[in-house]
Amino acid sequence: MQKLLLLPDAEQALRIDKIKSGLSKAASGSYGLLVTSNANLFYTTGRVFSGYVYISSGAETVYLVKRPVELAGDNVIYIRKPEQIAEVLAKAGIEVPDTLFLELDQLSYSAAERLRNTFGASVLTNGSAAIRAARDIKTEMEIRLITECGVKHERVYRRIPHLYQEGMTDIELQVEIERTSRLEGCLGEFRICGDSMELYMGNILVGENADAPSPYDFAMGGAGMHPSLPVGANGTEIRPGNSVMVDMNGNFNGYMTDMTRVFSLGDIAPLARKAHECSIRITREIAAAAVPGTPARDMYEMAVSIAKADGLEEYFMGHRQHAGFIGHGVGIEINEGPVIAPRSRDILHLDNVIALEPKFVIPKTGAVGIENTYVVTDSGLRCLTSSPEEIISLE
Amino acid sequence: MQKLLLLPDAEQALRIDKIKSGLSKAASGSYGLLVTSNANLFYTTGRVFSGYVYISSGAETVYLVKRPVELAGDNVIYIRKPEQIAEVLAKAGIEVPDTLFLELDQLSYSAAERLRNTFGASVLTNGSAAIRAARDIKTEMEIRLITECGVKHERVYRRIPHLYQEGMTDIELQVEIERTSRLEGCLGEFRICGDSMELYMGNILVGENADAPSPYDFAMGGAGMHPSLPVGANGTEIRPGNSVMVDMNGNFNGYMTDMTRVFSLGDIAPLARKAHECSIRITREIAAAAVPGTPARDMYEMAVSIAKADGLEEYFMGHRQHAGFIGHGVGIEINEGPVIAPRSRDILHLDNVIALEPKFVIPKTGAVGIENTYVVTDSGLRCLTSSPEEIISLE
Repeated sequence: MQKLLLLPDAEQALRIDKIKSGLSKAASGSYGLLVTSNANLFYTTGRVFSGYVYISSGAETVYLVKRPVELAGDNVIYIRKPEQIAEVLAKAGIEVPDTLFLELDQLSYSAAERLRNTFGASVLTNGSAAIRAARDIKTEMEIRLITECGVKHERVYRRIPHLYQEGMTDIELQVEIERTSRLEGCLGEFRICGDSMELYMGNILVGENADAPSPYDFAMGGAGMHPSLPVGANGTEIRPGNSVMVDMNGNFNGYMTDMTRVFSLGDIAPLARKAHECSIRITREIAAAAVPGTPARDMYEMAVSIAKADGLEEYFMGHRQHAGFIGHGVGIEINEGPVIAPRSRDILHLDNVIALEPKFVIPKTGAVGIENTYVVTDSGLRCLTSSPEEIISLE
Repeated sequence: MQKLLLLPDAEQALRIDKIKSGLSKAASGSYGLLVTSNANLFYTTGRVFSGYVYISSGAETVYLVKRPVELAGDNVIYIRKPEQIAEVLAKAGIEVPDTLFLELDQLSYSAAERLRNTFGASVLTNGSAAIRAARDIKTEMEIRLITECGVKHERVYRRIPHLYQEGMTDIELQVEIERTSRLEGCLGEFRICGDSMELYMGNILVGENADAPSPYDFAMGGAGMHPSLPVGANGTEIRPGNSVMVDMNGNFNGYMTDMTRVFSLGDIAPLARKAHECSIRITREIAAAAVPGTPARDMYEMAVSIAKADGLEEYFMGHRQHAGFIGHGVGIEINEGPVIAPRSRDILHLDNVIALEPKFVIPKTGAVGIENTYVVTDSGLRCLTSSPEEIISLE
């Protein structure tokens, strides 16, 4: 048998308390939350399993497990199917709650209806926001894990110039970076909240392909290798004068860092160099100014105004198609809160972890600009992805 | 501008007609289906984009696009948000349907409610089954694409013995196979219907790790490299006497083949060899016997009875934890219909594409057995994954 709960008790209590504090504000009467998504099972227990974590106002947290066999611990109950949940909880002395929270932003409609029915007459309420709000503010342990990712991520990026060989295409270089990253311990899985965005291990964008519009609200596009996955590398050969933007997966322990760096072969156009310097300046100025309480949209405006002052507005966050943000929270998933966007109502909190990616697409040259992951501290943003930021030569 | 529709007109008409024939049986009055998931957008247009395909009883198919910019064609309409759908359809002269179908097995509860509201008072019905039924029976073009995958998949597997180096762990060998596969054109993305199963590029299982129970109803388990992704390779060194089971991603063009082969270092136990031979025999006997009309559960029973007759029942489809099926449909996603399981009500149809994976876990040795992908023909199953089936030496 293995222990189901892999988080230290105090760490788990901290996380569950944060979730409960959100739920109690949204509930009327007693409440229960059935956690179902892999990301949130991992957040509340430290592992992914098939089953549910049941968090409720009146009782201890209960673990309803379908698979794997052999998990053990306090309040671990095996079930075969969701229809047993109500019966199993009743046996454990846990009453049907007045308000049932489900992760309605993650669960399919069919699955949510099936789970609601197992609980009978409860009011069904969306619990996704309460968990998201808890997860957006990282614990000390989470910041330590994300810091560890940054160190490994940086180690992979440092080797990129040594992976390049003359005549390589974007996808050939990407495959070598994937290999290096996997051997460094990258788990590969790129968790994106919501079904609609798909991405495999990240993106490399070379030259004009950076300007190919993608279906996703990503900072950069790329036509991709196939219309079933129309994003990123498209087989472009890396040639002198191209920029090579690398934005690859940093999931080394269930948490992620998000980092982008630019490489080049030969000289690249002065306009592209200027835009790259502008991106570095944007991240540094925001990192120095942003503190708990800063509105996310002010950070967005700051970025736009620096780009404008440099006369680079038309290239900012894309050229033929523009992305509607310059940064986002990151943790277990790549698209957490806060969102750094023009109409965002998010406010920075202490211990948010965010990625800033003020990027530019320069016609003919390609994409330039950097992305770093930061933790929000009282004295500004502390960078967790400390690779050199200038454009690095592949030669 | 690019053409939105990448399927030949006749091919798309065939697919849409199959879906409509399922919908019309489930609808009362006029109906509309809003296709939203990437897999089904790809099925109905030949590309993934951000937006919707609207299929209805009374009008031509309409494409509602959010991103990328620059897609063009008949009935392509750009929208910014779902709330514009009703207005945009009304402008195009398309009435609100009596029955609104949404992919309720794929769409999140929140997204489904949001879309339902844009349509006003329609009856909301689950359209997932009608699309699934259409997709389960492959067209000639789809069979050609899956056949092409099988050829490339086989090319990758042929190189596996050359990738092995002494002292390698399971994950080190896996990374080299991933690289070879990606350079051969594998797109990486491993599409699994439903949120709960996560897998990165497939599995390699070496020795005892094959018996570690996973959270998923996969044929084999594996502890994985981290509790956030608890499946597959766990860092086990490949040693003489171990079996090395390779079950890696075969997505080369948006479609997939599913194939498993076993490799070994040195001699492996006679019991494991016997079980491997039994697996080959099971696939061959089923492939010869199964034709359109064969109940899926008969195929399952056939497999179990052959394993029993060989005295191998306790090792069949797992040892500490057993999987509840021996095969499944495969296509755009890895878990399509029909499902070859004991309580399955599925019946084989002409042009189903299915993977059969009667596998065994032998304590100490590891996993053995093969998996092939087949197309259902009137004279039995035709194999699309034609690598040698015996256990292959890594030396």
